[in-house]
Amino acid sequence: MLSIGTIVMGAADVRRAAEFWGRALGYVPREGEVDDGWTVLVPSEGAGPGLALGRSTTPVQEHPRVHLDLYVADAAEQEAEVARLVSLGALRVDWDSYPDDPDFVVLADPEGNRFCVIDSTHG
Amino acid sequence: MLSIGTIVMGAADVRRAAEFWGRALGYVPREGEVDDGWTVLVPSEGAGPGLALGRSTTPVQEHPRVHLDLYVADAAEQEAEVARLVSLGALRVDWDSYPDDPDFVVLADPEGNRFCVIDSTHG
Repeated sequence: MLSIGTIVMGAADVRRAAEFWGRALGYVPREGEVDDGWTVLVPSEGAGPGLALGRSTTPVQEHPRVHLDLYVADAAEQEAEVARLVSLGALRVDWDSYPDDPDFVVLADPEGNRFCVIDSTHG
Repeated sequence: MLSIGTIVMGAADVRRAAEFWGRALGYVPREGEVDDGWTVLVPSEGAGPGLALGRSTTPVQEHPRVHLDLYVADAAEQEAEVARLVSLGALRVDWDSYPDDPDFVVLADPEGNRFCVIDSTHG
């Protein structure tokens, strides 16, 4: 059966990206260690899609054609998780298209890949 | 707990994209119907990340910075699933970077978003 295996994100520094995403999501390298060219991270316990990191020179897009939405349970967890992600090396993006009262916060990983943290119970 | 909620893919025609991805993955609209601007698809049964489709004018990248890897169980299933996806409207991409004996096939959805179908037991 066809299934979503991984989301693949480009990185200038796969090791740095794997460190960030491993700590962000509680993921570990599937093969036990990080390869500088290509590393697949999987949940350290439980189910969930993998996250693959591959060395890439393709530029990041300001309004990415494809991106990741991470979910949290409520507004308090959203604030706490955004702060935690920033402490791990994420950057807050000065997003030009926030609506009033957004349910999402736009961040970028240390490689510049933009992603969102969504309060899944907002409104 | 922070988790991968959805992968968000851009589309010129969200309805067409939702039709394709719903049939490709056995997913259904989370809100019961498709919205022309933004639609989240979720597994019709069982677990798995969502797939969100949003109207986008950001161009597709030839070597995407972020993309989706779909997994199948073996080479026979890979061939069958690639044929099925093409019958649903996917295009085979004339990928310029195939290694010898690749474990992946590069396709594009009807919106041009490139993705791979991986034989997860290859070699």
